[in-house]
Amino acid sequence: MPPYHGSFEGNGHESQNYLFGCDLKADNDYHFNVDKVGNEHQSYLRMACAGAGTKEELNVVESEAMNYYGNPIKITLATLKMSVQPTVSLGGLEIIPPVVLQLKCDSRPVHTSGQNFIAVEDDAESEEEEGRGYETPWYIWKAFCS
Amino acid sequence: MPPYHGSFEGNGHESQNYLFGCDLKADNDYHFNVDKVGNEHQSYLRMACAGAGTKEELNVVESEAMNYYGNPIKITLATLKMSVQPTVSLGGLEIIPPVVLQLKCDSRPVHTSGQNFIAVEDDAESEEEEGRGYETPWYIWKAFCS
Amino acid sequence: MPPYHGSFEGNGHESQNYLFGCDLKADNDYHFNVDKVGNEHQSYLRMACAGAGTKEELNVVESEAMNYYGNPIKITLATLKMSVQPTVSLGGLEIIPPVVLQLKCDSRPVHTSGQNFIAVEDDAESEEEEGRGYETPWYIWKAFCS
Amino acid sequence: MPPYHGSFEGNGHESQNYLFGCDLKADNDYHFNVDKVGNEHQSYLRMACAGAGTKEELNVVESEAMNYYGNPIKITLATLKMSVQPTVSLGGLEIIPPVVLQLKCDSRPVHTSGQNFIAVEDDAESEEEEGRGYETPWYIWKAFCS
Amino acid sequence: MPPYHGSFEGNGHESQNYLFGCDLKADNDYHFNVDKVGNEHQSYLRMACAGAGTKEELNVVESEAMNYYGNPIKITLATLKMSVQPTVSLGGLEIIPPVVLQLKCDSRPVHTSGQNFIAVEDDAESEEEEGRGYETPWYIWKAFCS
Repeated sequence: MPPYHGSFEGNGHESQNYLFGCDLKADNDYHFNVDKVGNEHQSYLRMACAGAGTKEELNVVESEAMNYYGNPIKITLATLKMSVQPTVSLGGLEIIPPVVLQLKCDSRPVHTSGQNFIAVEDDAESEEEEGRGYETPWYIWKAFCS
Repeated sequence: MPPYHGSFEGNGHESQNYLFGCDLKADNDYHFNVDKVGNEHQSYLRMACAGAGTKEELNVVESEAMNYYGNPIKITLATLKMSVQPTVSLGGLEIIPPVVLQLKCDSRPVHTSGQNFIAVEDDAESEEEEGRGYETPWYIWKAFCS
Repeated sequence: MPPYHGSFEGNGHESQNYLFGCDLKADNDYHFNVDKVGNEHQSYLRMACAGAGTKEELNVVESEAMNYYGNPIKITLATLKMSVQPTVSLGGLEIIPPVVLQLKCDSRPVHTSGQNFIAVEDDAESEEEEGRGYETPWYIWKAFCS
Repeated sequence: MPPYHGSFEGNGHESQNYLFGCDLKADNDYHFNVDKVGNEHQSYLRMACAGAGTKEELNVVESEAMNYYGNPIKITLATLKMSVQPTVSLGGLEIIPPVVLQLKCDSRPVHTSGQNFIAVEDDAESEEEEGRGYETPWYIWKAFCS
Repeated sequence: MPPYHGSFEGNGHESQNYLFGCDLKADNDYHFNVDKVGNEHQSYLRMACAGAGTKEELNVVESEAMNYYGNPIKITLATLKMSVQPTVSLGGLEIIPPVVLQLKCDSRPVHTSGQNFIAVEDDAESEEEEGRGYETPWYIWKAFCS
């Protein structure tokens, strides 16, 4: 399905689409960071796949992020087992930096995860006349493997 | 895919996106509650994952909510089994508080679940000129583990 | 992802979102019916889950509905097996009443199902100026377990 | 999620939503055909399910269609195995007639499939002022089992 | 769900929808290339399916593409195993050429993949008055099996 992201051009901008990927290991997290300079990024997680070298144990893909109250939280995004379910669709889960993706192997019972979209009143800011739907903070998105 | 939530800014608001997660156990429900003060929240369930400590039995993720007639109902959102299907995509199912998520292990035959979107006539309320698509009650969303 | 349903308010209406669920058994269908009075309903099937008491056989979730030519048809929405795939996402399949959901256990080879969206010319009806996208018949949606 | 199909009414039309289904067998294809008279149809494949009588072999759901260059192509939409993955979500894959769905059992290595949306310049045609998003050829959609 | 791609016609264009498919083998990649002449293409990956001849090993579907910084990257889109999970939905992952899809069988631990949508400021370009949401480079999309 073609994505609808009219808000980008509503800002007098033009969006471009890039694939990204990261290979998580027990000692290899993936960091999405923020700088307040530059282009707007929207990042969406699509697939989590256990690779060929993966051990026959439960591989837990976790995300460290900030919740609505500004507290750091850990969220389980997928649990994968090579002999059972090697690939899972994450359905385009949006990532708002700062977020760390990591792989863990000792976890607790059933996890659910989701997204909140929270409307914040902004009295001062002048809005475009119409068709504007979406406003995220402006930042440079720096992805690297630490 | 970038989400479209023009209704937020149509209200002269600005939305922000947060991840959330909850770890359900047999004695640990997760409550989404409502207060009629503050920012608008839209919450979407994305993934349900059986964690590493999960027993080899059917783990049933249930939701207690109000239906259209104001009656409390229980809805099965996912059934997970560690050796068969440890992770399930919930496809962005929207949660309208008050909702309780819980884990159960004694359930009945095949469950289906879904969402109704119901258009209520509102004669009095003045609408924005155009582009407005969505109106949910205003509330503070309080998520906690009881 | 936040849903876009601008058409509701384009009608001078306001939509609200409710969860629903039904537990199908061999002798317990679920009926979605229509009355031409009242609020507009849009119903979407999200998940089909085999519950804990489900037998180790193929559980077939079927839907009886009307096709475009006004003929009753039976459509297989999901086949579930406890030891193989206990939960399936139905991806938000829209239900237009009258529809009956039922559970069957004797079925034929590979089933596919889908949705048609059919544009019907309506010369007489005056349209809203813009932003109107969607028109379904007006009905009361009565869901019950027979 | 409520579908957005404003283009239909933007044309001064009104869309209606119907379920369809077809039971594919080795000798029972399903044909989506085109006539240049009548209502506009948009058809979306949702689910492919192996039924109870399905043999314990790989069931390959194929589609014969025209590609962008006007050449007939065969596309694998799903491979199902009763003991492994009896049901697959096709995610609302749009069908543009003429298309034939068929069941095959002798296939090659990993298949991927997708959709192209191709913007064709149309100088002459006058566009609606705004809100128009989508234009497909007008046809009668005739679905039958040959 | 009907796709919304108003941006195409906002450009005074008309979009058409085609299926495509490619059969990846160890020595048979699939190339999506770009020419700066002609119609606009948007391509979306839908399904990855292990075919009947597939060996009982982990089949890794990889994509070679350019990231935001102009560097070539390899991204794992799906890992498939005939006896475990022969078909995976890729959820409509958009492909922006140049991209190479390929099949690999020696890989590393858990992979995740996603998409960035990046808003680039474009001062000079005059925008349509409203409703424009999406701008991708113009190119001829040439798909072939090398």
